[in-house]
Amino acid sequence: MAPFTTIAELRACCLDLPQGDEAAAQAIARRERELTKPPGSLGRLEQLVQWLGQWQRCSPPRLHRAEILVFAGNHGVVAQGVSAYPAEVTSQMVANFTAGGAAINALAKTAQATLRVIPLLLEQPTADFTREPAMDEKAFIAAAAAGFDAMSPEADLVCLGEMGIGNTTAAAAIAAALLGGGGLRWAGRGTGLDEQAIKRKQDVIDRALARHVALLNDPLSAAATLGGRELAAILGATLAARKHSIPVVLDGFVSTAAVAPLKKVNDLALDHALAGHMSAEAGHRALLTELNLSPLLDLDMRLGEASGAAVAILILRAALAAHTGMATFAEAQVSNRS
Amino acid sequence: MAPFTTIAELRACCLDLPQGDEAAAQAIARRERELTKPPGSLGRLEQLVQWLGQWQRCSPPRLHRAEILVFAGNHGVVAQGVSAYPAEVTSQMVANFTAGGAAINALAKTAQATLRVIPLLLEQPTADFTREPAMDEKAFIAAAAAGFDAMSPEADLVCLGEMGIGNTTAAAAIAAALLGGGGLRWAGRGTGLDEQAIKRKQDVIDRALARHVALLNDPLSAAATLGGRELAAILGATLAARKHSIPVVLDGFVSTAAVAPLKKVNDLALDHALAGHMSAEAGHRALLTELNLSPLLDLDMRLGEASGAAVAILILRAALAAHTGMATFAEAQVSNRS
Repeated sequence: MAPFTTIAELRACCLDLPQGDEAAAQAIARRERELTKPPGSLGRLEQLVQWLGQWQRCSPPRLHRAEILVFAGNHGVVAQGVSAYPAEVTSQMVANFTAGGAAINALAKTAQATLRVIPLLLEQPTADFTREPAMDEKAFIAAAAAGFDAMSPEADLVCLGEMGIGNTTAAAAIAAALLGGGGLRWAGRGTGLDEQAIKRKQDVIDRALARHVALLNDPLSAAATLGGRELAAILGATLAARKHSIPVVLDGFVSTAAVAPLKKVNDLALDHALAGHMSAEAGHRALLTELNLSPLLDLDMRLGEASGAAVAILILRAALAAHTGMATFAEAQVSNRS
Repeated sequence: MAPFTTIAELRACCLDLPQGDEAAAQAIARRERELTKPPGSLGRLEQLVQWLGQWQRCSPPRLHRAEILVFAGNHGVVAQGVSAYPAEVTSQMVANFTAGGAAINALAKTAQATLRVIPLLLEQPTADFTREPAMDEKAFIAAAAAGFDAMSPEADLVCLGEMGIGNTTAAAAIAAALLGGGGLRWAGRGTGLDEQAIKRKQDVIDRALARHVALLNDPLSAAATLGGRELAAILGATLAARKHSIPVVLDGFVSTAAVAPLKKVNDLALDHALAGHMSAEAGHRALLTELNLSPLLDLDMRLGEASGAAVAILILRAALAAHTGMATFAEAQVSNRS
């Protein structure tokens, strides 16, 4: 059960997070130096294994149970014409996930990961945040708790993704509230807006920032005011993963914006999270830079659904296979450096 | 059997290459537009599937038989102190590949690819090219033919990699001969040189360029004069793949330098080749740019052995799984753009 029922309790939870296991990371680094390759020559693959072990608190780490959680929500702000697709696509895509026909189904299978889709009151969109806060405290906490409780404590890794027509607008608004720069800096094409619609999206964000200025000083209150249920759930799930020693792979712009409030509350709160990729969505590069996250892949993807994070699992599997499968110099009788 | 016994015949072979199948690429692009995602939102994954289909001449493409060929050779230039490891490591690592203990063994398994290691006269290093040409025409053509003949005509994809203590010096020398800039531009740390040793490596390259200036105008003659057997074999295998409609994934700096002469002979000769990754070896970025190759991954790897290319197979598998596994808008009854 989520250990918070109010924003104040959620904040306290963000400030009381376990640190990683440095001894596990060091044990992994020691073994890396003995493997039959020049030191450091597997580059980021070596770092990924250390990161996995540090946050799983385990050497060697394991990837027997990789999970993908996709949270879905609907957004009142779509009434402002901020999406290229109609709002009913959110629930249609949830049905597509369930039937196995979406990109994430194919990618999860390739990554040997279990996909779970968690729709969050799709019949009850958040309020249009150009008029009133998207969620009140109760609705926000309920969504964050749903995300927290969705985590399987026994998972080895979790990818967090989302589906929600209109949610790049919510994500951009959160980024703007936390990091400055307004709609111009953060509004992107989403599912495929033209120039005129992007301008409208920028304006929607700027109006919301102006209307709710009194609510935006606190990062968690900003997430309630401008966010969405699926974003709140990703935030909650990221906290739960930390408590359960499960490394997190974030997906694209929306997932990253969803956890940005955690970093603002506690600068160490995302240390167990990896940016799976750099999305083609306009604001993602700046957002990753602001959060000091270094994306693993850069494949010009911009689908959401945890699709980029799922592809990143493949790299983690390769990294772990090299770490656990390789022979040492001594075992293979290979001469070390002259 | 390789269709060349002289450099002149090899050049003729380079100038007579089949083009890709545009109809297959277009059929793939048409299906992509019907799948349940915003157009283009899988980014590079979509382009990869088109590239696979274009060069396999087939829609949808397939990845049932992915092969990894690792060619190994020894280099007389190691006598000049250009490597951090002793020359005997080449054959020791070939034994390690055979025993299954190297990084490429673990990565090939993860990528569900068949690994074949082809040692090329390891007991007979090429000549020290600061003194004489590394190979005469006969030795160069024999190695290129060995690479050509090593290709399995029925493979769906091939990754080309190498092992050879001293071969980043050969690769840098070829790059310098073909693209200019001398040792300073192309010499990198290889397996882990210090600053003083890099300076020595630069000087070795510059001395070779000066000594053999008369032999370096022709790209294939430059590859014979400054290269190595494993580099020549990669060149030959790349030609064979083109003839057999097999897309190629190149590995790092050495593999890329090995095929650079093909591009200089025929600007279209590498259209069926993908740069699997950007290596951390200093010259790789500039080399990829010069050859107009856009690397798929950037993971700070610098091991060779086809290791980066093997990781790239995983991305290709994800791309193909999405293309073949996803439902269309009509099948899934999802509303298209409003």
